[in-house]
Formats: sequence, C-alpha cells, structure tokens
Amino acid sequence: MTKKIERLDYPIKTLPNGDTQNLRVFRMRGSAEGPKVYLQASVHGAEVQGNAVIFELMSFFSKHDFKGSITFVPLANPQALHHKSGTFTQGRFNPQTGNNWNRNYTDITECSHFNVEEFIENHKENITTFFKEYIYRSLEQEKVNLSKRGLSEDKGLNIILQELAAPADIMLDLHTGPVATRYLYAAEYAKDKVKDLPFPFTLFIPNEFAGAMDEACFIPWVKLQEEYQRRGEDFQIPIESYTVELGSEEVISMSEAKKDAARILHFFSQRGIIADTDLEDVFLPKTEQIAAKLIDYKTYYAPKGALVEYLAKPGDFIQEGQPLYQLLNFSELNHQDDLEKCLKEVVAEEDCYIINHNPSAVIMEGTGLYQVMRNTFEL
Amino acid sequence: MTKKIERLDYPIKTLPNGDTQNLRVFRMRGSAEGPKVYLQASVHGAEVQGNAVIFELMSFFSKHDFKGSITFVPLANPQALHHKSGTFTQGRFNPQTGNNWNRNYTDITECSHFNVEEFIENHKENITTFFKEYIYRSLEQEKVNLSKRGLSEDKGLNIILQELAAPADIMLDLHTGPVATRYLYAAEYAKDKVKDLPFPFTLFIPNEFAGAMDEACFIPWVKLQEEYQRRGEDFQIPIESYTVELGSEEVISMSEAKKDAARILHFFSQRGIIADTDLEDVFLPKTEQIAAKLIDYKTYYAPKGALVEYLAKPGDFIQEGQPLYQLLNFSELNHQDDLEKCLKEVVAEEDCYIINHNPSAVIMEGTGLYQVMRNTFEL
Amino acid sequence: MTKKIERLDYPIKTLPNGDTQNLRVFRMRGSAEGPKVYLQASVHGAEVQGNAVIFELMSFFSKHDFKGSITFVPLANPQALHHKSGTFTQGRFNPQTGNNWNRNYTDITECSHFNVEEFIENHKENITTFFKEYIYRSLEQEKVNLSKRGLSEDKGLNIILQELAAPADIMLDLHTGPVATRYLYAAEYAKDKVKDLPFPFTLFIPNEFAGAMDEACFIPWVKLQEEYQRRGEDFQIPIESYTVELGSEEVISMSEAKKDAARILHFFSQRGIIADTDLEDVFLPKTEQIAAKLIDYKTYYAPKGALVEYLAKPGDFIQEGQPLYQLLNFSELNHQDDLEKCLKEVVAEEDCYIINHNPSAVIMEGTGLYQVMRNTFEL
Amino acid sequence: MTKKIERLDYPIKTLPNGDTQNLRVFRMRGSAEGPKVYLQASVHGAEVQGNAVIFELMSFFSKHDFKGSITFVPLANPQALHHKSGTFTQGRFNPQTGNNWNRNYTDITECSHFNVEEFIENHKENITTFFKEYIYRSLEQEKVNLSKRGLSEDKGLNIILQELAAPADIMLDLHTGPVATRYLYAAEYAKDKVKDLPFPFTLFIPNEFAGAMDEACFIPWVKLQEEYQRRGEDFQIPIESYTVELGSEEVISMSEAKKDAARILHFFSQRGIIADTDLEDVFLPKTEQIAAKLIDYKTYYAPKGALVEYLAKPGDFIQEGQPLYQLLNFSELNHQDDLEKCLKEVVAEEDCYIINHNPSAVIMEGTGLYQVMRNTFEL
Repeated sequence: MTKKIERLDYPIKTLPNGDTQNLRVFRMRGSAEGPKVYLQASVHGAEVQGNAVIFELMSFFSKHDFKGSITFVPLANPQALHHKSGTFTQGRFNPQTGNNWNRNYTDITECSHFNVEEFIENHKENITTFFKEYIYRSLEQEKVNLSKRGLSEDKGLNIILQELAAPADIMLDLHTGPVATRYLYAAEYAKDKVKDLPFPFTLFIPNEFAGAMDEACFIPWVKLQEEYQRRGEDFQIPIESYTVELGSEEVISMSEAKKDAARILHFFSQRGIIADTDLEDVFLPKTEQIAAKLIDYKTYYAPKGALVEYLAKPGDFIQEGQPLYQLLNFSELNHQDDLEKCLKEVVAEEDCYIINHNPSAVIMEGTGLYQVMRNTFEL
Repeated sequence: MTKKIERLDYPIKTLPNGDTQNLRVFRMRGSAEGPKVYLQASVHGAEVQGNAVIFELMSFFSKHDFKGSITFVPLANPQALHHKSGTFTQGRFNPQTGNNWNRNYTDITECSHFNVEEFIENHKENITTFFKEYIYRSLEQEKVNLSKRGLSEDKGLNIILQELAAPADIMLDLHTGPVATRYLYAAEYAKDKVKDLPFPFTLFIPNEFAGAMDEACFIPWVKLQEEYQRRGEDFQIPIESYTVELGSEEVISMSEAKKDAARILHFFSQRGIIADTDLEDVFLPKTEQIAAKLIDYKTYYAPKGALVEYLAKPGDFIQEGQPLYQLLNFSELNHQDDLEKCLKEVVAEEDCYIINHNPSAVIMEGTGLYQVMRNTFEL
Repeated sequence: MTKKIERLDYPIKTLPNGDTQNLRVFRMRGSAEGPKVYLQASVHGAEVQGNAVIFELMSFFSKHDFKGSITFVPLANPQALHHKSGTFTQGRFNPQTGNNWNRNYTDITECSHFNVEEFIENHKENITTFFKEYIYRSLEQEKVNLSKRGLSEDKGLNIILQELAAPADIMLDLHTGPVATRYLYAAEYAKDKVKDLPFPFTLFIPNEFAGAMDEACFIPWVKLQEEYQRRGEDFQIPIESYTVELGSEEVISMSEAKKDAARILHFFSQRGIIADTDLEDVFLPKTEQIAAKLIDYKTYYAPKGALVEYLAKPGDFIQEGQPLYQLLNFSELNHQDDLEKCLKEVVAEEDCYIINHNPSAVIMEGTGLYQVMRNTFEL
Repeated sequence: MTKKIERLDYPIKTLPNGDTQNLRVFRMRGSAEGPKVYLQASVHGAEVQGNAVIFELMSFFSKHDFKGSITFVPLANPQALHHKSGTFTQGRFNPQTGNNWNRNYTDITECSHFNVEEFIENHKENITTFFKEYIYRSLEQEKVNLSKRGLSEDKGLNIILQELAAPADIMLDLHTGPVATRYLYAAEYAKDKVKDLPFPFTLFIPNEFAGAMDEACFIPWVKLQEEYQRRGEDFQIPIESYTVELGSEEVISMSEAKKDAARILHFFSQRGIIADTDLEDVFLPKTEQIAAKLIDYKTYYAPKGALVEYLAKPGDFIQEGQPLYQLLNFSELNHQDDLEKCLKEVVAEEDCYIINHNPSAVIMEGTGLYQVMRNTFEL
C-alpha cells in the first residue's frame, strides 16, 4: 500500500527585490489505477478554508488506500494572500490592474492553434487521454505565444494552474463567499452528476467561459462534445470541474474542515476512488441539496449609503416581504420625530435562500449586500 | 419638558471634485442644568457599533427628561468610513500618510500660547467654566497658527472634534476592537470614577498624552491639577474622558446596542443626568469589572507566516499553557510523517483574559494576533 | 450672441455617512443650431489633464460664438478621484470590486427591450433625432430594470454618463495613459473621419463593445447601420465617439491644455461648430498622424522582478533591437564578476512607436512596462 | 589588492504561504584598515534611486582599492517594495498598521538593559570599538525581550537593519522625496562634518530620536557624549549617520546615479577611505550647499480640494509672493464670469527654496503639497 506524499515546488514569479514566489504542489498516488483528482485553494487570497480541507483530505489519504492520484495545491495564489490593506486581506483582484484573479484563465478553445475538428480527425480511440494531452500541449503553446514580450502577471499564475489541472478527471477549485453558507457552481453538462457532491446549495451556470478556473477546465470538453454532436456522434464528457464555496472569507476552522472533507470524500467514494468502508469513521452531515439557475441568483444592492445590520443569515430561507437587513443613517434626522427614519428595514423582493452577504457594515449606495437564490428546486 | 434635537452640520473638508465632507452634530438639552456630555463614534472608519449606541441613546433621551446637555457626533470621520480596499473598510489610518486617525489630536498644553500658571494667576473662581473656555480658545488659536500655510488633513478634523468636546464634563469616544470583547481605556486620574461605567474590562493608562482623543481631553486638566499641586493647593479634576471599545469592527447590532446603551445610561444616572426611575425599563447586563494596567496589556505576534484559527475567544480567561490559536502551514511538509507539523498550536505565556484578536486568518510573521490582559484585578 | 454657461448638479450616490457625491455638468449653447457635443474627463481618477482642457474650451467658448451646444462633465467620477493609497490616486478600478471604471458601461443593444428592427419599422425619417431618443429611453428603461434590488455602484455612475451623452453627435471621453504621449482610440466606422482630430497617434479598434464609454456610444449606431445594410439600405453613422488620451496620469498642465484644446477646436471647426476665423489666435501644433490597428498594439511585460529605468520615451520611434528599458536586480550577484549581470538591457522586438510606459520603477515579473504601436501607417 | 564582494542573505520573515522574504547584504573589504561604512536603500518601497547608487559604488569599489569595509543593503524592505495599489508603490507605511517603515527603529538608550554610566565605568579605552559592541549586544538583548510573545512585523526588519549598521563608522540611509531635489538630514552633532557630503540641501535636525534609522544610529553616541560631559570629560562622537534623499520616488536613473555616487565618493575621500587620485575619472557636480534648521522646514497644505499644477520646481528659489502652484476647481462655477475663479494661484508666504512637492495632481483639502526651506544659510 503506497501512501507517500510527493512535493513539487513551482516558482511562479520573481519580485522586485529578487525573491521568488513559490507554489507547493503535493501529489498522492493510490495503489491502483483510478481517476486523477486536482484540488486547489485560495486563488482569492482571503478565501482560505479550502486549505484546511486540503489538510484534512491529506490526513485521510495518508491513512487510507485509494485509486488513482490526487494533486493538492493549497495557497495557490501567494500574491493574493500577501496583499493586506488594514487588518484584512484584499486578495480578490490584482492590486495593480484590478483584474479578478479568478477571471484570468485562458479559454484554450479560442486559441488559433486549438482545433477540435482536427483533433477528432486524428484520434479515434483513447479520446480522454489524448484530449487531456492535447489540452496540455495547447496550453504550453499558448504560454509560449503569450510570452514573446513577457508573460503578464495576470496570465502567468493562472496558466500554470490550468496546466497542473489539465490531466485531471475531477477538478475542485476551493473558494469561499464573503459571509456565506456552503455552495457550489456546477455547469449544465454536469447536472446529473453534481448530486454526488452533497453541499447544501448548487448554482447551475451555463456551459460557457467567463474566465474562471472551473470553466477553463470544462470548456474544451464541452466544445469537443459539440463537435461530436455536429457529426451525429455521441460523446459523454468524462471530466467534472466545480467551484466550491466553503463558507466565509478570512476564516479557517479545523472542525468545519472535517465536515467539508466528509462531503468531498463521499463524492470520491461515489467515483470509486475510495471504498465505502473507509468512510465509516467519517461523519457526513445530512444535507438537503437546494439548487437554482444562474438567472435566479440575485444580488441586492444598497439603496443608499449607510451602516447596515445584516438580519438574514446565510442558509436562511426568507419569504417575500420578510426583512433582509436594516440601514442606520442620520442624514434625515433634523427633529426628534425623525428618529424612526434613521433606522430603515429592507425586505426581500421574493421567496429566496440567503447564500451570502457583504462582510462590512459600512456601505456606499450601490454596494452589493446580499446574494440570494430564488425559484430553487431540490436535486 | 424639552426634548428637542438640534442639528448642526459642520463642513470638514472639500474633496478633489469640489464636494464637501460634512459632520452631522446633534445636540439635546435637558430641562434643568447639569453636566455637558459629548459622545463621538467612528473616528476609525470600520468601528461602527458606537453609532448604533448613539441612536439608542437619542431614542432614550427623546422619551425621558434629563439634566444638562448631550452632544452626539455619529460617523465622526467620513473620510475613514469611505475608504474601502476590497470588501472591507480600511478606516484606521489616513490612506495618504498612514497616520492613525486617533493619534492626530493636539496636546494643547504643549502649545506656546497655553500656560496653566498664567491661567491660575488670572482665575480664582469658576475654574471649571473658565478653564473649558481657555482650552477652547487655545484650540482656536492653535488652529489659526497651524493654518498659516494650510491646515493638514491629519490635523483638520481632529481639532474640530476637540473643539466640539472642549465644553464637555463627560467625553466618550466610541471605538471597537478588531474582533473584541467590550472594554474601555481609563487614565489614572479617573481610577476611582470608572467603576461607574460598567463595561466588563478596563485598561488603565497613564495620565499622559499619546495622541488619542481621550488623552487630548484630559491632559489639560491633569496639567492644571499638577500646577495646583505644585502650589500646594488641592484640585479635583472635574471632567471624565474615556475611550470605549464596543466589540468588533465592521459590525452593527441594534440588540447589542441596547445593552451598550444601558451601561452608559447607568453611568449617566450615577452622574445625576437621569433619574434611577427612568432606568426601570432598561436592562443592565450584570457585569464583573476586570481591570489591568497598560503594562499588563500584552500582544501576541505570529511566530511565522501561516493561516491561523483563533481558538481563544474575546472575553475568555485562559490559563498559562492553554491554547490560544493554531497555525496551518504547508512549508515543512515533505513527507506524510510531516503532516502533523503542518498544524501547530500556540499557547498562552501567562494567565490572561482575551481582549481581542486579529480579524483575518491570513497572517505574516510578526502580525499582531491577540491582545490580552494579565495581572488583572476587580474594580 | 448667447454664451451663457448653464450648470446642472447631478447627485450620483450617497456615502456611508449620508453625504452625497455630485457631478457638476456645464452646458453652453451657441446662437445657431448645430451639432451637440459632449465631453467628459476623469472617469479614471488619476487621469486629470482633460479637466484642464475642458477649462480651456469653456474659456474659448465664453469668448467666441459657435453653433450647437456643448456639454462638459469635468471630474466625472468623484469616487475614483478620492481614492488614495499613499501619495498616489488609485482611480482606475472600483476599490471594492476591482472593476475598471471604464468597463462598466451598458451595451444597450443587448438589452431585451432594445430592438433596431422594430425601430426601423417605426421610423422612416428624422432617424438621427429619433434614434438618439430611443437610445435615451432604452437607457432609462434599463436603469429601472437594473434597480429592482438596488442599482450597483459599478453601473450607477456609468449609466448616468451614458444618458448625458445620448443626445450627442460628438462624444469625447478624455483620459490619459500612465506615462504617455497623446493618442486616441477610434473605431473602424470612423476611420475616414478621425483624421480631422489631429492628435499624434490613433489606435483603430473594431466596431465592437468591450465595456468602454466610446464603444457604448457608437455601438447602437453600428447595429442600426448593420440592420439597414441587411435590408439593402444605405445608412451613414451620423455620430462620432472617441477616447482621447492626453498624456500622463497625475499631471495637469495649463500650457499643454492650450495645445490639447487647439487640436479639439480644429476638429470642431472641421465639423462647422466654430468658424475658421475664430481660430486665428489658437496655435495648432503641427502633427503627423500615425495610426495602427489594435492587433498591432503590443504590451511588453517584465521578464523578472526588478527595478526598471525606462529608456525609450513616449512618442519615440524605436527600431527592432534598440533598447527599451534596463533592469536593475541584485539577485544574481555573488561575485564581483557578476556585477554586469545586475544591469540588463531589454530591446524592442520590432520597429515601433512608444505610446506609454508604467509610471513606477518597482516591478514584479509580469508587470506591464511598455505599450507600443507597430505596423503603423500615416492617416 | 582585495576587491571581492561577499554576499550574505538574511531571511527577514515568512509569509502566509510559507515563502521567506530575504535581504541580500553585500560586503566589500579594502586592503587596509579603515572606516566601516554601511549603506542601505529603499526602506520606503517607492524610494529606489539609492539602489542605483549602490550599484555604481559597488562598480567603483570593484575597480579601486580602499581602506576599511563597506556593507551594502540594497532593497532593504521587500515588503514595502512589493505593496502596490494601482500602478504605484505604496511603500511608505506598513499596509496593515499604517506605521511608517522609517519610524519603527529602536531607541536602544531607552531600554532598561542599556546604561551609558555603567558602560563608561567599565571601559576606559578603545571606547569606539567597545561601544559599538555594546550597542550590538544591547540590540540583540532587546530582540530577545521583544520576542517573548513573537516579534512584531513593525520591529522585526528594523532591528535587523540596526544590528547590521551597529559596527559602522559611517551610516547612509538612502531615501528619496516625493518629487524632490537632492537633500540630506544631518543632526546637530554632525554640523561641522556634513559639509564634506556635498549635496545641494541640508536639513539640520536636533540630536533627538523620532524613530528614524539615522537617529537610531547616532542617539547612543549622543547619550554617551552627554554622560562624558556630565562628568566633565571631553568626548568626540566618532560616527556619522545621515539620511540622504536622492531625488524623486518611483524613478531610477543610472546617469543620475553616477552623479550621486560622485558626491558620496568625494565624502569617502574626505574620510580617507579612497585616495583623491582615484577620483580623477569621477565627475563631481559643482554644488553650493544650502542649509536650514528643521524649524524652518515648512509644509504648504492644500487650502481646498482641487486639481493642482505644481509651478515651482524642486531646487527653485522662490520669493515671498511668487507663485507656488495653481488650483483648478469647478465648484464655484455657475456663470461665465466665474470662469476665472476656477483657476487660483497660490503664492509663497516667505522667501524659500523648494525641496519637494506631492507627486499627484489630485488633492484633498489639507493634503501636503510643498515642503520648503526658509531662513537658509550656506555651509
């Protein structure tokens, strides 16, 4: 039984003083063939719970045999982790460019050297294996193309992460919301599979590319499937790629990490990576799985600048007309009879589940306060 | 019975586009003579609970008569409130200069035109009233002196706030900690009085000026007392000035604000501002008052860069050797036997009460994590 | 002869303390009918030279008659102007979201209630006038649609600016580069017209929407033209919309503003807004107009973290192999023979004109350093 | 003849992902005994010209023999160098705490274990050598004392730098102003020596500690001298410690670095470190040395929020009443006759030399704009 952890350090970039930023990539291999799994955490610097989950999973796999291999990339974006402004971590976007670190991935299908028609012509068997290699080689080529006058900081890290994930059958990109419940993003292609990953909320996004890691991983396979369909041939997408939101930013909790890991281990057992018997000591929280479409994922913005008390909590079900939050504002106070105007409750426009809210009580007019799911259904 | 709220708007400064930042100052007057009270909140922009408390107090005083007058300055530092970086508010220091907004006040006793000896020579009665006026006029003079080549942004707001507070017998500067319990700063001169302000923790600071509002308010009176003592005369400091820390930053809670207001109202009843009978409907949380000296207020800094889970909670009593926090770090992980090295518990160096901790799980080596009180005593 | 300036103040949003941010919009009307002109400056907060140019133009038009009307919106983004971090202004992106302030405009042609086919069916004459109104009403409708749960800060200001510009025949969005020469962005539809706006460099972009103001203004007209073409009818786009880059960020120069204004006044005289004779006292710098396509606008990224000295200056023509910049880095210095490795010159990959460079000497690997035009041609 | 460069890497701190920040310290030794020199650059992250000067000096000393030894610490504050917000470097203060990186040094004479009286009792000869050792050991002890609950980030780097400089006879801390001429800070103890360091402007500060490196280096010697004087004994301070401001932030220029190095080499030749003959090929700019006392170093703050054009240039002499800058502001513009109110010139309050100005055209009311020297005299 092999359980060894292999560590590979990847230099990402050099800094103004000559120091190097590094990724620490850990690989564990099971004793039998099986799916290749890839997990990364903290591409957004303040979203750190995924690292605790990676630690729990590594601990589990160091004690139990499994099939296939798992690649762990904790703390996947050092630059984002290190960027503080005051006591908090601003790790969501590149502080130089404003570009969201999870919108810089490459849609390899849009690169001129990537051609699914040609690929299908040239490959009649072992499609999964060959297509993974094709994706990897295309990313390598794109990196060369992009590097002629230097590779941009916004592309540099992300293309390395895409290459690391290219061989994976299962890719989990571990994020968190601001103040949030646990939920995941799944694209339409995976709608019958995501039930096996038992987090309380699932948001269905289209099979499209908008810059994120999960999309970058599935989009080549979606395009491959489309080309097969155009040819009248059937092709099942063999990979799965999800963004998983593990609660709130700026927090790690090892006890919550055990529960998060249990959900993921349950998923792995469904994919044959681990045996059910190995899960006997793993407590899986009982979970009703609520889902909605992206079009039913709605944001409430502040109607005016104020202080805000968040009344509805992540995970809550709120009926239309029930209070979401209240605003405290002294600008209309001129007389004691105005006191009641200082405190104003704002209610839900629709029946909905609270997914997350802003972590700050100090808001401008137009600041995003709540994100909710409406028209939900059970998986 | 008079209960009217008077509003005065103070322009603080003009902005690059020509807009003006404004303070909204509210004044309520009781039907009889009595102490002058001054409360301000949010000089640090993320520390906002004080505004909710001001709202609760204004609501109380709009329904009950009282003696004296109360000046409320909610949202006292607009610039600090508005400065965001990512989802959070960096409102602790001027983003241009780095200067802590609560270290820019003026020690008027150090100004060449302020002279307690001269004041004592010239005033033999009504000392309190005349000295308040002297402080106010000295601040006005200092503002003129400082303004010859323009008044610096770091001084501008703070000297306005000092002038507003100059007539006060009681000054409460409402702040919060990062993630914190409720506590207050009291200087030595007030050591027998602070018992009347029943917050769970009190930190005793010296009768010295280090730039903060509470110090700026009491230091002229301390110097006046010293001069009387030098002359062999007795003089009791007639004013009180405290910094009150109302829990955690980035949060308002109206239900907590009722409790905070109850503690302050109890204090006001002790000073004869309100009648005990008016407090019948006000629930005062039962509070043991723990105190320590500034020298026993200790900060724990991160021994290395890592993710941190805060185990000890604000308000907790922790014994020497008990765990404070644990660090998660993958840098020493090269082999499965190293897994346990990834998670490292750090313990308290002494018996202590936890006052506050850093709000972020993402820390550099040397980041301040916990502040604790040791060698505590009961008031 | 009418020369009066009309001022209209637009509240944009309220701030956490209740203050309001305001736009100051100035309108001047000529004594005869003529084109409607719209100019705005400083949507990016550090890019301020356009305001000096607006001042020069207002001064000119207060002394000379003209045809039509001109709307000036200086300091068009107060939030962006006010956001400092250290001594400099970070006004390029929303500090909460990272969203580039000039990528948040609305492509009204993508909104479900906007339909060019229907418009053409319903309007057979006065197309320009009616289509401007249609655009305006569609923006109003979109604002209502977006506001159901509050209007996001990222959309709020920009949709107001679009509405202000909707009636314009000529729209100039005044920006600057980082450290830059003067250049403008013109889309393909205007390729025969832009010659009349004599700035030294012109970048041709496609007739497409990528979020910017100039695109938001021309895209409805491009779609209208396409629909006419589909019907086999001819339609000339009657409006012009350009982004103009007036040198470097963080700088105003009134003497340069006179030259910038002269170029714009020359353009206005070509459009019949002012008489040639009124330009007798206006000095127009002699300008060779160099242009390139967007595909030939190339960015050089730093090959490693270092300090950088920018050798090639904005406006320079650099031949392939000539030095662009040099990097200073001590990380490879272990022995005195390594000294020459500390300083490394980097050369141009192609013959090109230097358009702008990064304003900082302190760079990460992957930081954008230079933007250049290659394969240039004269207008 | 020995000219070898010795490199020593100092780890400063670990980061959240486990990476380490490092100092690269370079040491060169001459073939004969002589003064120990210490130079550091970029404790403020945007102030980088000193690194270019260090490179020039290393190049010079690799070709010429000298007496003594020189320690170079380029890029002395990696954290400060790496902190970007938008295109610029905010490297002046710790982004977590706001603490100015050049105000965190330790006044070792205030530490309880440091006692000059005791030192004098115990040492009757070789005072310089023993006192340097005493300072170093005291810093080591202080580091231990400060580290009981972890060493704060604000203290960590600075105490390492103090230890590196402890053996030095000459300490130069290389900074820059914002947009600035070249000038240096010299304390009163060095008033007869600083003439040998021929920069155009010198600011005399008191022999006091305010947190900066130059002060941290000289204050123990000042206290030692004071104690000798109290004993009626003469003691000449054998060390020199200066802060040197090399022009503007965010800029390196290798050609200017040659001139800066020439000034420093001239100083070294005056101290017997290099022979005059070695300076034959070094061009020393002819320099009149203007000086003023700190009390005559005055800051002009913006009288209102506006855009600013800086008219007076660093190094200029400006007479009372001559223009310093002009403000552009549209807030008072309601009518065409108001146009002239938009542009307002501000003049000097006194005859003065311009030392530096703010690098941004976008200013709040109260932003520091200019720093000037008045009541100047020649050295």
